[in-house]
Amino acid sequence: MENGNLLFYVFIIYTSAKILGEICVRLRIPAIIGELAAGILLGSYVLGIIDTSNLTLMSLAEIGVIFLMFHVGLEIRVKDLFAVGRTAVLVGALGIVFPLIMGFLTMFLIGYQVVESLFITTAILATSVGITVKVLQDMGLIRHKVAYIVLGAAVLDDILALIVLAVVKGLARGEFQALEFSLLVIESLAFVGFLTIWGPRLARRTRSWVEKLNIPEGPFVLSVILCLGLAELADVIGLAAIIGSFMAGVVIDELAGVYDLENKVKYVNEFLLPFFFVMMGAHLDPRALFKPDLAVLILLVSLVAVLSKIMGSALACWKESWKTRIQIGVSMVPRGEVGIIVGLVGLSLQTITREIYTIVLGMSIVTTLIAPPLIFWAFRKDKTLSHKIKTQVSKIKTED
Amino acid sequence: MENGNLLFYVFIIYTSAKILGEICVRLRIPAIIGELAAGILLGSYVLGIIDTSNLTLMSLAEIGVIFLMFHVGLEIRVKDLFAVGRTAVLVGALGIVFPLIMGFLTMFLIGYQVVESLFITTAILATSVGITVKVLQDMGLIRHKVAYIVLGAAVLDDILALIVLAVVKGLARGEFQALEFSLLVIESLAFVGFLTIWGPRLARRTRSWVEKLNIPEGPFVLSVILCLGLAELADVIGLAAIIGSFMAGVVIDELAGVYDLENKVKYVNEFLLPFFFVMMGAHLDPRALFKPDLAVLILLVSLVAVLSKIMGSALACWKESWKTRIQIGVSMVPRGEVGIIVGLVGLSLQTITREIYTIVLGMSIVTTLIAPPLIFWAFRKDKTLSHKIKTQVSKIKTED
Repeated sequence: MENGNLLFYVFIIYTSAKILGEICVRLRIPAIIGELAAGILLGSYVLGIIDTSNLTLMSLAEIGVIFLMFHVGLEIRVKDLFAVGRTAVLVGALGIVFPLIMGFLTMFLIGYQVVESLFITTAILATSVGITVKVLQDMGLIRHKVAYIVLGAAVLDDILALIVLAVVKGLARGEFQALEFSLLVIESLAFVGFLTIWGPRLARRTRSWVEKLNIPEGPFVLSVILCLGLAELADVIGLAAIIGSFMAGVVIDELAGVYDLENKVKYVNEFLLPFFFVMMGAHLDPRALFKPDLAVLILLVSLVAVLSKIMGSALACWKESWKTRIQIGVSMVPRGEVGIIVGLVGLSLQTITREIYTIVLGMSIVTTLIAPPLIFWAFRKDKTLSHKIKTQVSKIKTED
Repeated sequence: MENGNLLFYVFIIYTSAKILGEICVRLRIPAIIGELAAGILLGSYVLGIIDTSNLTLMSLAEIGVIFLMFHVGLEIRVKDLFAVGRTAVLVGALGIVFPLIMGFLTMFLIGYQVVESLFITTAILATSVGITVKVLQDMGLIRHKVAYIVLGAAVLDDILALIVLAVVKGLARGEFQALEFSLLVIESLAFVGFLTIWGPRLARRTRSWVEKLNIPEGPFVLSVILCLGLAELADVIGLAAIIGSFMAGVVIDELAGVYDLENKVKYVNEFLLPFFFVMMGAHLDPRALFKPDLAVLILLVSLVAVLSKIMGSALACWKESWKTRIQIGVSMVPRGEVGIIVGLVGLSLQTITREIYTIVLGMSIVTTLIAPPLIFWAFRKDKTLSHKIKTQVSKIKTED
């Protein structure tokens, strides 16, 4: 049962994330910035206490973000997700098309080869919705209309990015496997489609069965099994695992209220989630931003990533007010894991250089760090409103 | 964020533990037997799906048992722990002395060398209280007087076993470092003594400070930090980490009620704990029991381990009824991690052979597997009683 310094790492990561997070809250900055900062500080580029090659810590991080998205799935209402469905699909689609075109043109025009340009472009496609979701959750805005649009768009956006990656990988290898590719597309759409349409109905039917089983904490245990199972299934298909756990939450959303699952899963999250943000921070090498030649490229790619996403998203919801369009746009800004995965795929195929990989990492640093304050700013007025509503609701409850 | 088959392992471990656990409950067998069986099945000796060299899974297991003991610490009342203090100390002490003498004599008389005999003996000293505690918790008996005695005895027993290990290690190396040894004894006693006597008072004083901080979920977060910190500190001293997390729970026991910490930590446990029992099961090689020569030795050592512990414990509480004495005795039966650690130390010092290591592992299999049914049987009447009381209490509450 000995495992090196595991306990020390767990203690130091949890404690520093919570302390820096709380300091940020006091300074009216999103807590997540503090947790990311804890990661940067502890990471191999500053203090060198933790490093991202530690599989155990990365696993805690992975399980952490899976539970985050599960919790988000439990919190939102399927009906409301359907209500914004069309907008979400458009935001997801144009949020891929714009970065794809703008990213490729920029890279190609400044002199990169076609395949290299395509890899960098693919890395800026998918929104890393975990960051956005946590900021909105902390602001009490996870049931805000924009949150629903962003969540729906992020699911689609992940699928589309995956499809683009399959194409680009095919081009890089010089062979494009049409069958494999079609299978991926069909599986992904079938997975999300089936769960969205039939999932909630199936879940409703299991209720009497769950009650009959009469296991203490049965609903919680079964929901965790569903969460882990769908996360694994999504991973097997080739989707991000978090899409699976999010869908698990959405599917059993109605039962969540009955069994108070949200509040139970919350504490699993309270323990595991800091590992995700700290390890995400630990990935970031702040020095990359201080090397002039690299820094210029990183900032350029980041700028393209941010602007193209905001433009695509804002265009997709042209019927909404400007405030809403900006909110949706900035919520789609953060890129993270998927970009890093694309970079790693490129490295392993030897089609991109370490320099390009650093640019991709740098872009994910920049977008991850600027997104929380941007989102915080874009929603600052809704926060007050939502808190007022909550206070009124609890007053009404007390009066009952 | 890729980590091999992690998600698959997490899914399969959690799911099979819960299914086999629930099947056992239906068969009126402790759930823990099902979870251990899931581990044996999945382990490298049967299906070969998981193996104990997977650091990530072992880490989840370690964090799981740390949270189990933290939860137990939160559940029990310090006052009641003090009330049984003298008995607990006697049970802990005689529960070490008897196995020490009987174990050494048996091994030496059947022909093992002094150092080898001492190592096997040391491996049978410390009770692995996690197993006992989980069975009692599932039976709703964690606040039973016997549970308090066993918990107190297990803390002392761990310290004493550690001291014996230091002496035996010194003998094996042929040099006995008196200073190092004294330091270990003083540190261990200071750690437990300080926390028991001053801990609760200090915790009480922090309450107004915690309230002033006014962090959402602050009490939960701070309690997790304390749990991880004391677990790490205990580990640094050389005690088992679970002693640290248990003491953390005991120290903030009074605040636990105010902030409903028990119910919050419970869900972290519900997720993490199956990993502990499954990985514990995965350690076990059932084939060892089918090799005649080894099997005889394993059964002999197990018999000595069980009888000596029961005799020592039962003698220590001679004032109690026979029923209580048997209950205490069987509760002290399981040996696990500490025995395995002693075996690993012996292997690394090259003072014991792989055969002896297998005997130690086998003994931990046997005691781990027979303890839950024994405990279940010894407490079967109290279970009914406790459930009746609970039902009445909830009736009274409903009537209010």
